[in-house]
Parts: sequence; structure tokens; C-alpha cells
Amino acid sequence: MSDNNSSGNNRRDFLKGVAKIAAGVAIGPSIATAGQSQRAPSSAADTMIDFVAPKLDSVRFGLIGTGARGLTHLRLLLSLQGAEVKAVCDTDDISLANAKEAVAKSGLQEPDYYTGHDYAYRELLERDDIDAVVISTPWRWHEPMSVDAMQAEKHALVEVPLATTIDDMWKMVEVSEKTRMNCMMLENVCYGRDEMMVFNMVRQGLFGDLTHGEGAYIHDLRMQMKQIARGTGSWRTYYHTKMRGNIYPTHGLGPIAQFMDINRGDRFDYMTSLSSPALGRSEYASREFPAEHERNQLKYIKGDMNSTLIKTAKGRSILVQYDTTTARPYSRLNLIQGTNGAFGGFPSRVALEMLPDGIRQDYEAELERTVADWEAAGREGKKPSARTYHSWDRDMSRWYKRYDHPFWKNMAEIAKQAGGHGGMDFMMHWRNVHCLRNGVPLDQNVYDGAAWSSLFPLSHESVVNRSKSVDIPDFTRGAWKQARPLEISL
Amino acid sequence: MSDNNSSGNNRRDFLKGVAKIAAGVAIGPSIATAGQSQRAPSSAADTMIDFVAPKLDSVRFGLIGTGARGLTHLRLLLSLQGAEVKAVCDTDDISLANAKEAVAKSGLQEPDYYTGHDYAYRELLERDDIDAVVISTPWRWHEPMSVDAMQAEKHALVEVPLATTIDDMWKMVEVSEKTRMNCMMLENVCYGRDEMMVFNMVRQGLFGDLTHGEGAYIHDLRMQMKQIARGTGSWRTYYHTKMRGNIYPTHGLGPIAQFMDINRGDRFDYMTSLSSPALGRSEYASREFPAEHERNQLKYIKGDMNSTLIKTAKGRSILVQYDTTTARPYSRLNLIQGTNGAFGGFPSRVALEMLPDGIRQDYEAELERTVADWEAAGREGKKPSARTYHSWDRDMSRWYKRYDHPFWKNMAEIAKQAGGHGGMDFMMHWRNVHCLRNGVPLDQNVYDGAAWSSLFPLSHESVVNRSKSVDIPDFTRGAWKQARPLEISL
Repeated sequence: MSDNNSSGNNRRDFLKGVAKIAAGVAIGPSIATAGQSQRAPSSAADTMIDFVAPKLDSVRFGLIGTGARGLTHLRLLLSLQGAEVKAVCDTDDISLANAKEAVAKSGLQEPDYYTGHDYAYRELLERDDIDAVVISTPWRWHEPMSVDAMQAEKHALVEVPLATTIDDMWKMVEVSEKTRMNCMMLENVCYGRDEMMVFNMVRQGLFGDLTHGEGAYIHDLRMQMKQIARGTGSWRTYYHTKMRGNIYPTHGLGPIAQFMDINRGDRFDYMTSLSSPALGRSEYASREFPAEHERNQLKYIKGDMNSTLIKTAKGRSILVQYDTTTARPYSRLNLIQGTNGAFGGFPSRVALEMLPDGIRQDYEAELERTVADWEAAGREGKKPSARTYHSWDRDMSRWYKRYDHPFWKNMAEIAKQAGGHGGMDFMMHWRNVHCLRNGVPLDQNVYDGAAWSSLFPLSHESVVNRSKSVDIPDFTRGAWKQARPLEISL
Repeated sequence: MSDNNSSGNNRRDFLKGVAKIAAGVAIGPSIATAGQSQRAPSSAADTMIDFVAPKLDSVRFGLIGTGARGLTHLRLLLSLQGAEVKAVCDTDDISLANAKEAVAKSGLQEPDYYTGHDYAYRELLERDDIDAVVISTPWRWHEPMSVDAMQAEKHALVEVPLATTIDDMWKMVEVSEKTRMNCMMLENVCYGRDEMMVFNMVRQGLFGDLTHGEGAYIHDLRMQMKQIARGTGSWRTYYHTKMRGNIYPTHGLGPIAQFMDINRGDRFDYMTSLSSPALGRSEYASREFPAEHERNQLKYIKGDMNSTLIKTAKGRSILVQYDTTTARPYSRLNLIQGTNGAFGGFPSRVALEMLPDGIRQDYEAELERTVADWEAAGREGKKPSARTYHSWDRDMSRWYKRYDHPFWKNMAEIAKQAGGHGGMDFMMHWRNVHCLRNGVPLDQNVYDGAAWSSLFPLSHESVVNRSKSVDIPDFTRGAWKQARPLEISL
């Protein structure tokens, strides 16, 4: 795609509508190949942190990609007040048919469809009735499609990971800054009920000063290897033959980064990464496919489990794991700890040393009941004692009751009904539409997507060099120091 | 201590009984300061892997240190058939009084006591009626006491960690090889019921080929800071002011290393380590001590959470964590995974893809019962489905029933009654006495103790160098390649 950036009729036609781009913006391969050292510091005025785009009455969407993931986005956007779906693009007939079926079910006006060739999405981008595009395509398309979208004056809302190379990430940062268009990675997990509750608890200081967090994507997806002609496995499988680190870091990392004010008072400083042997995929292939099958010819090199450690400028530590191969239950770990205690996920649990009002009374009442039951039963031995942080409190109900994020407090039923990973997808789209209509900054900016996704290339670099320490670029170019902490509120 | 090694009357007196030491053994600071590069490869004949000492009718023990930890050892050894306690040494009056009380309670013959000065233990070592010494003293004494013990023809059974510097570990390796005396680190967690069951399951291939393991010591021990004049905290607290990595790595790591055949077909290759900020201890001190108290003058630099990643020669990965500061529940993680599934600890749980006979039938019977209940209750919706590896099986009873290690199968009641961390301490001493009486190699040799403890200095080195990758010495000097896997059997 980037080879076609600077020449050809497509390109000229495409650029017709892009008058707003500042004169000095470099377009084309020169940015794509520029290294980190060539980046000039941006001024605070240029930063996209807390950037607010002009308010929109309603957000008119174009969708690029309606496969496994994009179809969920389409359904949710069709259901959202304040959102309109104007155009849909996919090169796959079945995906496009699925999109049409979803539209028909909604009873809403038919959008225009774009298909037929890899660059059909550019025709969609030429429209002037689209405010934002949702990009749900194979990873190598994220950067060119996002850049094209922003240069066509559309906000780019792009699936995870933002991109797969540091150069591509820098390009997206620069184009977002120059075009003044949002480039948001759609990290839906940041909108999960537990993640938002913990965000709320962190902001209220319940964990004290944060010291350490853990996130993961542990999800057996070997069955995707059976997707040969279409589907996620038809392209993602090959990353297991080319990369050795964490190729999907953001789901576990995103919420931890928000808890820790990454790019807003703190930033990722350096990291190191280490992988296990790659055994599971070849074993699976030999069991599930004929010997002569292509899946048995591939050499899987990405270790089944990858573990990455990150150090932040404030000294905090983060563990991020990736394993989509091992036969074990799903987990994102989702652990955060500070000087006053910890929250852990899968299953959710809390342990706090100094208790906030409400919870303390709740524990006292619980103890009273337990002791009363114990005495009534005439039991002997040690009397039940008060709950402490030495054991996890796994009863989330008392925590939801007091610390549910306001969005979930008000919309839990709607979100769950709308669906998409238990409602987090709905919540994310609802939030984005709210922000774009009301002049509120999006919760995730291009620096966040870049920083979280940077583990993709950097973990590989570390793994292939005996886990050497690798510096993480500061995509904000210093602006993290002045930025105020993230708020997720109306 | 090592300053006194080569001179003085004490030293000469002490050497009187050490005629058996081969002429070529260097004694004194020359070894203690020699770097890794000066180590000559040992021949296979010299290796202490699977070393068998001459059988003993009964094992006559001397104990050095009867404080918080040594007293447990004393009580257990007093209760063990085939063990005799001949002598006890401690420089602390209260510890010695506790030891005397324990002996009195046992009704056994009074051992001789040694006390009065730091080197009183050498008087104990001069006796010729002691086969093995148990060393439970502050960490800096582990190396000199073990070396002195072996040179006095006693097996050294030494508390964790084996030592705190790589040079000290090398010295212990060399002295063990030259004196042909065991130098075993007393990693009791290897004898826990779950750890031994998992060892058994690993040996039976239930997890497939191992890829990744996790161990930890997450145990809030801030209260030890209140031990000022005596007790563990009176000396261990200072390591938090001097070291920045994992200062207590072996409890979580030992079992994982045994599962993975470390030093017996595989070995630790390199590691990297990263710490969180050190916040919890100073916060605790300011809350719990007067402003002018010494605990408020210390500068705590050891990050509250340390995470270390290890790569083995076979490519496997291990995560080891250390946190004795954060207010959160105890955990050793105790996770092992392979191509067929995983076991995790705290709480214990199993997930396997291909099920062994017995367990499969158990799951089928469970499903039949669940479906029958479901039908009887006239419920609607989705029929209960078979248990899979996508959720953890937390019902350990069916696993204990089939995979409990034979030692636990036969002695669980005795072990729990005898006590010591739920019976694991008893099991360890019983096992050691069994081995020494029956010509069976001890389960942990000097290379194991050294490799597991090497994280103490090496994690510090990595942490202070931006998590740089650090090579882990091969203490076996190549003998790991030929060594057969560990068996823990009669």
C-alpha cells in the first residue's frame, strides 16, 4: 500500500478532498521509513492529548472491514442514537453480505457499499458525508487506512493493535497531529465493567500509590488455524511464523496504562521480553490437519507464552503476557496493586488494607452475621474473625454497588443487551459518539494506541536478542509531562 | 567471617578433625574471591548430581540456629525415626532456651549446646558424632557455615537462599565436590502436597511438553520490621536497603525447576529482572514507628514487587516474582503449563485438553449427574455441557485421589500432624533422613541450590542496569547434559 502512496490516479483523486491538510505535511514513504531519531519534538500546542474536534450533531460513520470484528461494530453503531452508518467497505463477499443482513435487520436506511479491490476503501474516504471511519481489517492495513482516513478529514477509529512497526506508529502520530484528526485505537477492554470500576477505584485512591500492574491475552485460539480462505486465522496464523514476541498486547495493557496515567504524567520507559518454546501450534497442526496440509508446512516460531516486563518513567512495573496457543482458560490477568492493596481479575477479587467507609461497615456486618451463625450452631474452636487483606474478597457485589463507574451504573442493562464482549463494545462506541458530539476528548489518543501497540515490534526485538532491554519511544515527545490525568466522565 | 578463615587459633583447632579433605582443596579467601571465568570444568566423575554418601544407620544431627526457622527443624528432627539430635548451637539466649524447651518436651536425651560467640558453631563442627548439620542462620552465614561443615565432614543442610553472591555459590559447589559432602538447600516447598502431586503429574506426561512456569513469594512481611533486637526482621530488613531485585527467589522457583529438569537435562540460561518503586516499607515505617525511629531513617530501595524472567537452555520460560511488602494475599503462583494444559496454584486448579483415564470418566459421571439434576429441576435453556480445559477444574479431590505423590498418599496424616507449613517441612526431613540412611541421592544438590539462589545477586544486577539480560552460570559445568531426570521415590 505505501508503495502506491505517492503516485497514480487513485492517489490524485483521493487527495482532492484533503485541502485542510497543512502545507508542510509530508505524505508518502519518506515518513514511513523515517527512524525515531529523525522525529522533531512537537510543541505542547500540537499535541493530540485532550484534543477536541469540532462538535458533531450526529456522527456519520464509514466502516472498513465487516468481518469477524467489524460486523459487531456495525451492529452496535446501527443501534446507537447519534450515530449514522453512511458507507461500508469490504472486499470479501460473505462479510459484505453479513453487513447487508445486519442493516436489513435494523430497518435503517441502506448505506452505500464499496468492494471489488483492495483500495475500494479510498472511494469510501472520498465522500464528504463521513466524520469517522472504523477500521477492522488485517493488521498490515491499519496504518495505511488510518493515514488515508485522517488525510481525508475523517477520524480514524482503528482496531487493535494500532500498527505493527514503530515507523508506522510514528507516521500515524504525525498525521494525527498535522491533520488534527483523532486516531483512536479501539481498545474495548478499557470499557469493561470491572476495568472501569477499577479505574474509578484508582482515581479515588483506594489502592494507594500504584506500584505494579499485570495484563494478558491468554486465550486459546488454535482453532483459528482452521480458517484457511477467510476469517482471522487466514492471516493472523502467519504472524506466528514471523514474530517471536507479543503480537496482541493491548487488551491486557490498555486498562493498566489508564490506571497508571501513561502518557499523562507517566510514560513507558523501557521493556524486556522473553518467550517459551513454540510447541503448541505445530502439535495442533499435526493432530488436526493431514500431513501434506499447508498448516503442517509452516514453521511456527512464536513461543506459546510470551512475558514482557515494562518499566515506567515513575518506576512502576507492568507484566504483560500473551498466549493464544496453550490449552488453558481465558485470562487477561487484570491485576493492579498499590501501597494499600490490590485488585485481580479472572476471577475478580479485591484486597485492601485500609478500608473505605461503607466497605468497612459491610465487613463488620458480615462478621456479625458469621459470628451469630457460628454461635447459634454451637460450634467449637476459633471464633470467626474479621476479613483482612490477607485473603481476597471475591464478592464483587459490594464493590459494584459502591464503585461501579457511572456509565455502568446507568447503562449496564443497555450495554449487556446491546452486547459485544459483555457490553464493553457497546460502552466504547456509546462513549466515542458521546465525545465526538459533545466536544469531549476521546479517552484514547494516538499516543496511547502507539505506546500500547509498541510492544508488538519491541517485544520481538527483545526476544530475539536474549531478552535485551529495549527503550520504548515517547510518542508524545515530552507532552506526557504536562498532561493532566485521564478522566472518563461526561 | 571469611576474614577470619585463614588465620587464628580457632581456625587451626577447627581444622584438626578434617583429615579427609583432599590435599588439593584450597581453603580461604582465594576461592571466595575467584570469578566465574577461573572455574575449571569438572569431570562427570566429580559431579555431585546423584551423589550417594555412605549409608548411615541413623542420621546424627547438629543444628546451627534455632530461631524462627531452626526451632521448627529441631522439633521435627526430634520427632523423626532414624534421626538423632546430638548438638545445638545458637548465640541468642532466647533461641537456645526455646530449643531446650523443645528437647525437654520430646523427652529425648539432652543434646550438647554451643553458644557464647559467633564462631561457637565451629566447636559443634569439631565433634565426630555428627553426620549432618542444619543451618538456619542469617543469610550471610550460610556460605561460611556450610563450607566449614563440609570441610569438617558433615553434610550441610542449609536454609534458603543457599548464599547471596555468585562467588559464595561457586565456593560451596567446589567444596561440596572436593569433600564429597552433600550441600543441600532446604527448599521445603518442593515437598508440599500440591507441588509433589504436580511433580508426579509432570512425570506422567499429563501436561505434555512443558513450556512455561511461574513461581513467586508474595507474602506481606512488613510486620517483621518491628523485630528490632532479634528475629528475622532484625537482619532481613536491611536487605531492602541494599538490594533491588529478588532476595528470596527459591520457594516459588524450586518446584518449577524440578518440574523442568533444571540441572538434569535442562538448565537456566539467562534472565532479566524488573522492579516496581519501593514505596510500601517507608509508608509502613512512617505509620508504625515514631519519626525519629531507626526504621524511619532507613532508605528502602528494593522495589515492592520484583518480576524476573528466566530462559532455559531448552527454551522454556519461567516468571519469578517477589513481593513481601504489598498488602495482598499470600501466593507462590505455582503455575506450570505445557502443550496439553496447565496447573495453577493459589487456589489450586487444573485444566487439561486430553484427559487421562479416570479423570475422563469422572468428568462424564459429573456431567451425567449435572444433566439429571438439570432435567429433574425442569430447567430451560442450554443443557449443561461437558467440562473442558476452557475453565479451571478447582475440585482437587479427584486429582489428589489419582495423582497424590506416594509420600503424601502414605503419610499425609503424619505430615500434617507433625506440622511445619502444612506438613511440607516434615516431609522434607523425613525424605532427607530416608535418603541418607538408604543410599539414595538427596533430591536437591548443591547445583540446584546455587542455580535457584543465583537470582538473588543476578536479579539485582539486571534491575540496576535497566533490566539488562544476564547470563546464569552453569554450576554443573556441563554435567546437566548427561544427568538423568530427578526421581523422588524410595
